[in-house]
Amino acid sequence: MKARVTITLKTGVLDPQGKAIEGALAALGFTGVDAVRQGKIIDIELGEPDAERARASLTEMCDKLLANTVIEDYAIELV
Amino acid sequence: MKARVTITLKTGVLDPQGKAIEGALAALGFTGVDAVRQGKIIDIELGEPDAERARASLTEMCDKLLANTVIEDYAIELV
Repeated sequence: MKARVTITLKTGVLDPQGKAIEGALAALGFTGVDAVRQGKIIDIELGEPDAERARASLTEMCDKLLANTVIEDYAIELV
Repeated sequence: MKARVTITLKTGVLDPQGKAIEGALAALGFTGVDAVRQGKIIDIELGEPDAERARASLTEMCDKLLANTVIEDYAIELV
């Protein structure tokens, strides 16, 4: 079973990487860019065939390792 | 208009960051993880209200700045 974990910064948390991209886009002449935020995705292939157990396992992975839940939100999507 | 650009490494390109996560998950006792690949997302808020022009502009941004098209694929999703 394949899963995609999407990790984004919580609203209100400063995102210097996003700001840098925003500045670079402006420097390249792209106008009309109002905001940029960067996040990450982690694609995981799991041996577990049961969707519910896979989701539980992924939630534990996110809480323990993949996301910093103080400043980041995560979303799990089974594909 | 909001857009999400998803950037992933092309198949076959080595992903040391993904391998490191895989190793860390195994060290934490998570079994049954067959493969891990890492990618990034860039959430962009655009002033452009026209979907077609927004997509064209985002494609240009990806080709010029956001993605390294030699080793990375990108997907644009308007939300």
